[in-house]
Amino acid sequence: MKTFLPWSLKIIGNPGRDNVVLSPRQAMQLAIKEAEKGFGFVEPNPPVGCVILDSEYRFLSSGFHAKYGGDHAEVSALKKIKDKSRLKGGHVFITLEPCHHKGKTPPCSLELAKYPIQSLTYGTEEPFTNKKGLNYLCEKGIDIVRSIDFQKELEALVAPFKFATLNKKSFVSLKIASSLDGTTALETGESQWITGESARKHAHFLRARYSAILIGFNTLLKDNPQLNIRVEPFKKKKNKVVILDPEGKSFSFLLQSNLLKVRALEDVIVCCLDKVKKNTLGINQLSLPFTSSHSKSVNIKHRFSLSPLLEILYREEQIQSVLVEGGAFCWSEFLRQKAAQKLYLYMAPKIIGKGLRWSDHFKIGNLSQSINLQSLKIIPIEDDYLLEVSF
Amino acid sequence: MKTFLPWSLKIIGNPGRDNVVLSPRQAMQLAIKEAEKGFGFVEPNPPVGCVILDSEYRFLSSGFHAKYGGDHAEVSALKKIKDKSRLKGGHVFITLEPCHHKGKTPPCSLELAKYPIQSLTYGTEEPFTNKKGLNYLCEKGIDIVRSIDFQKELEALVAPFKFATLNKKSFVSLKIASSLDGTTALETGESQWITGESARKHAHFLRARYSAILIGFNTLLKDNPQLNIRVEPFKKKKNKVVILDPEGKSFSFLLQSNLLKVRALEDVIVCCLDKVKKNTLGINQLSLPFTSSHSKSVNIKHRFSLSPLLEILYREEQIQSVLVEGGAFCWSEFLRQKAAQKLYLYMAPKIIGKGLRWSDHFKIGNLSQSINLQSLKIIPIEDDYLLEVSF
Repeated sequence: MKTFLPWSLKIIGNPGRDNVVLSPRQAMQLAIKEAEKGFGFVEPNPPVGCVILDSEYRFLSSGFHAKYGGDHAEVSALKKIKDKSRLKGGHVFITLEPCHHKGKTPPCSLELAKYPIQSLTYGTEEPFTNKKGLNYLCEKGIDIVRSIDFQKELEALVAPFKFATLNKKSFVSLKIASSLDGTTALETGESQWITGESARKHAHFLRARYSAILIGFNTLLKDNPQLNIRVEPFKKKKNKVVILDPEGKSFSFLLQSNLLKVRALEDVIVCCLDKVKKNTLGINQLSLPFTSSHSKSVNIKHRFSLSPLLEILYREEQIQSVLVEGGAFCWSEFLRQKAAQKLYLYMAPKIIGKGLRWSDHFKIGNLSQSINLQSLKIIPIEDDYLLEVSF
Repeated sequence: MKTFLPWSLKIIGNPGRDNVVLSPRQAMQLAIKEAEKGFGFVEPNPPVGCVILDSEYRFLSSGFHAKYGGDHAEVSALKKIKDKSRLKGGHVFITLEPCHHKGKTPPCSLELAKYPIQSLTYGTEEPFTNKKGLNYLCEKGIDIVRSIDFQKELEALVAPFKFATLNKKSFVSLKIASSLDGTTALETGESQWITGESARKHAHFLRARYSAILIGFNTLLKDNPQLNIRVEPFKKKKNKVVILDPEGKSFSFLLQSNLLKVRALEDVIVCCLDKVKKNTLGINQLSLPFTSSHSKSVNIKHRFSLSPLLEILYREEQIQSVLVEGGAFCWSEFLRQKAAQKLYLYMAPKIIGKGLRWSDHFKIGNLSQSINLQSLKIIPIEDDYLLEVSF
């Protein structure tokens, strides 16, 4: 399978080469790199990577969960080792604890227990396995170690999966592109691509990681976007689109929009307030209640309660994760209602000055109400930057 | 001499150790790291670093220009080599071409020519030496190489020096701290530290690199800052302060301000429009003409022509470089008049939303007038980021 990972870490040296000795830290770093290859292919499973070293910490093999329903990472790595006697006293590194149930494939815990490995180091827990596989392997005499390295990166790998399954609602990331001063367009409304070609291409890889793209109806009417994935190996991947349209203003436009030139009507979900009567156009219409917490707000008619929306999207549409691509009002509502878990901020090294900002509709009364985020990583993409931060 | 370099690159391995073999790229990287140790001590000279390898590219020594009037980097590195016979066939790496004139110290070109070195690799040119030293060494049979590596970093080392001496005016950097969305305070005026303690400490190291700090009179009146350097080894270093005060509104406040609690009155320069009559308070008052290019602007009374100001600061006050620390109106004027060469943007992973922005007073008519910058580097400082970009 072809993989393309513009965001993957470069590892010093070549630890994926036979017999090269790796430290536990390097082994876990490589396992993360392996896991990332699964992004866009394994959902709703989380991506998982595995590295196996022999008793002297020499590299034997690596593997990753490559496809939903396909081999798990451990099995993929084990299969690559022809001479299984080299596993004696070996060390296994997995980004996520091994499964212990028979799903589409056999339990990884049982597969691992077939071999005389000495230790298993895992990156993070999986709430439903609940260490059952680890306990089983421990009883079989294998040393179980929780990695102390790369915890932020390891948690980020499984964050959408964990959040959605635990909270029974979609995981939400905001995707925003702006200048250094936070501007996205001039007050005249003039806007254009702010970031460079590479950053825009990168954003397509990002789309591939999410079950659905969400936009506001104004963005649909104004930009008429396609919102599909225009990079390989994801070009054939179908992503759903969710449109927030409280009053159902986009119905007729939608039917002739670019969105529908590249996807089927059933892959578009339009969310309207429940007073909007059901359309007769065949559009997948989701009715939602008013937001209750701001019932006296001036803008009440435009606002959804996002938490019930995300619950319905998860429960009824199997949408594990949503990428919110705009516009400014939409982003601000997710900020205001604390309904986002992550922010991808593409920043171009430009100054635009006074103009429209992505956070213009988000307003706080005093600075103690600022939203504080945690930095995950920053990636230079040509002249632009991508900041990944979590809420 | 104690040095503290929170921004210096980490070099893989330990290339500053005897006999370790370095590639030319690694040698130049180490020379840059050496050069950076001089920041804050060598001005108005540029910082320079030097690395010397033997004929087999084994590390012999490194050195840097540590103090204005002290040894140049080459001499410092040469002095550390006790057994000079090891220089036979050796390779010298210097971030800047060697000098060829007798100033406070002997010409480095003559010092280098005393030894049978094989090659000299230099990072960038020095406009006044004009390759005289390089030509001299070339005639002595030494191979002269211009480094192809790290050109951005090498130019950044000498940028203030080169700009000021070539243009006969002060080099200008803007220093700004903001949230991810470009906000610096709420509309109510409420503001507080946006970045964390480490980033604010880092900003003191930045101050040490500049001859003067520049602020607008409103920032003086409102924040009453000290603007001194409160980190070692720079605590005793005296930096000048320039205040832009078109109408001379800050005179009486200044005399009792925190600025003067930590520095002498003669180290503060107040720039007023030339219609403002000379104060009798002993304040160092600089009279400047109106800006001519915007003579019909509404705000004409508040605006200076910055280019003549920067020429006077360089010529009459020996200010090679200026760090503009605010406020928003001040930053915007430097942006509008294209009078800045560099921007240090400290960004906290916070979202503040609608509020006052650092670029609010900078306004363009269409997006083609956006200011495009070049990324130099991005440095994570605890949870914050520092973006270094050049205009």
